[in-house]
Amino acid sequence: MSAKQTWFIPDCYWPEGGTDAPYVSHEAICVLNPSDQDAALQITLYFEDREPMTGFAAVCGARRTHHVRMDRQKSAAGQTVPRGVPYAAVVRSSVPVYVQYSRCDTTQADMAFLSVIPQSE
Amino acid sequence: MSAKQTWFIPDCYWPEGGTDAPYVSHEAICVLNPSDQDAALQITLYFEDREPMTGFAAVCGARRTHHVRMDRQKSAAGQTVPRGVPYAAVVRSSVPVYVQYSRCDTTQADMAFLSVIPQSE
Amino acid sequence: MSAKQTWFIPDCYWPEGGTDAPYVSHEAICVLNPSDQDAALQITLYFEDREPMTGFAAVCGARRTHHVRMDRQKSAAGQTVPRGVPYAAVVRSSVPVYVQYSRCDTTQADMAFLSVIPQSE
Amino acid sequence: MSAKQTWFIPDCYWPEGGTDAPYVSHEAICVLNPSDQDAALQITLYFEDREPMTGFAAVCGARRTHHVRMDRQKSAAGQTVPRGVPYAAVVRSSVPVYVQYSRCDTTQADMAFLSVIPQSE
Repeated sequence: MSAKQTWFIPDCYWPEGGTDAPYVSHEAICVLNPSDQDAALQITLYFEDREPMTGFAAVCGARRTHHVRMDRQKSAAGQTVPRGVPYAAVVRSSVPVYVQYSRCDTTQADMAFLSVIPQSE
Repeated sequence: MSAKQTWFIPDCYWPEGGTDAPYVSHEAICVLNPSDQDAALQITLYFEDREPMTGFAAVCGARRTHHVRMDRQKSAAGQTVPRGVPYAAVVRSSVPVYVQYSRCDTTQADMAFLSVIPQSE
Repeated sequence: MSAKQTWFIPDCYWPEGGTDAPYVSHEAICVLNPSDQDAALQITLYFEDREPMTGFAAVCGARRTHHVRMDRQKSAAGQTVPRGVPYAAVVRSSVPVYVQYSRCDTTQADMAFLSVIPQSE
Repeated sequence: MSAKQTWFIPDCYWPEGGTDAPYVSHEAICVLNPSDQDAALQITLYFEDREPMTGFAAVCGARRTHHVRMDRQKSAAGQTVPRGVPYAAVVRSSVPVYVQYSRCDTTQADMAFLSVIPQSE
């Protein structure tokens, strides 16, 4: 079984500014849960110059996908993802899932994409 | 042998709109089958807010590649892939194959690409 | 040891047309050979509607990288890579190496990139 | 444990020229170190036509990420990364870490991205 409970994304970045349409600058941690149990997700953020931020949570239901938009996330303490600074993320899931990380940057007139399947364990 | 029979693609999205040339907005599930047996492919789509869609099928012949264009797929029930909504895909093959997922988005004047080798088992 | 002798790239495509500068539309099969033996590379191309093409070869020296430009390749029979058609590639190396596949598409005024680490065995 | 001490990036390239804002053309070797020990990083560069360059070093602290900007690196001998030539990189870490390689190319008016999780061992 290649589904995993922990995923590691070294290159996260929420671009500052950008267009409003068709897309805003954003990152998505895309989760696929083909199992029959809901997946509770805990996301920890790592930075270059301070201790990690915890308290970001999401759910991906059984037989569902959830493209978790990091620009819309709020932590339990009401914090949003810091913008314009390099960070990394670790995703922990209560059941094995599949994860893909994608970024859309629209800070120039036309957009650029990147996407990876993170390391897992 | 690294060829696999099941592939998992968490971040699928068929952009709405876009240019007509040189490319339309599209996704491709690219299959490589270097074996001597044809590969029958079954594709299941997962969504954020409803049960999975089944019934999408394709063939990748022996010693062939097939870049399966998701914007041209029709299910057995005559359905097309929903446009403008986040989804995920699981590809099952009758024989072990290699899979790569790529997207071309032309909703702005200039296009953006993303591509990954999905998880497999 | 994660270096491998066979690599599989399902989504290859040499775009037709594009700008001349700063980049032409091109694909590169990028090989890293940190070993102390030269790597002899054999590249086989797979298509959607015909038998595979063989006879493409390259060398990546010991302690060297070689970003093999597919738009400049000629087979032993003098053939070039077909342009504007979906294909796939299998790379076989005489010694274990690391491979990354990247494409630069300049068919619109501004370019788009994609890059993956292929499956290997 | 999927964290690794050695990472291999076949397709490196520091584009010549490009815009100044919002981004300069650059590459980043993004390291995530969720462990409680600092990671000392040694980076070796491989080329198409000469012996490898050594002496590039960086640190990724415990519970930190470091997006190592290759355009700002200087070797122990005071050398910078050569610009406009294909190269490859091997990253060695004193403790197991996670690595992602990303490039931002702004040599045209609008930028293009690529990103991969490298091979590891």
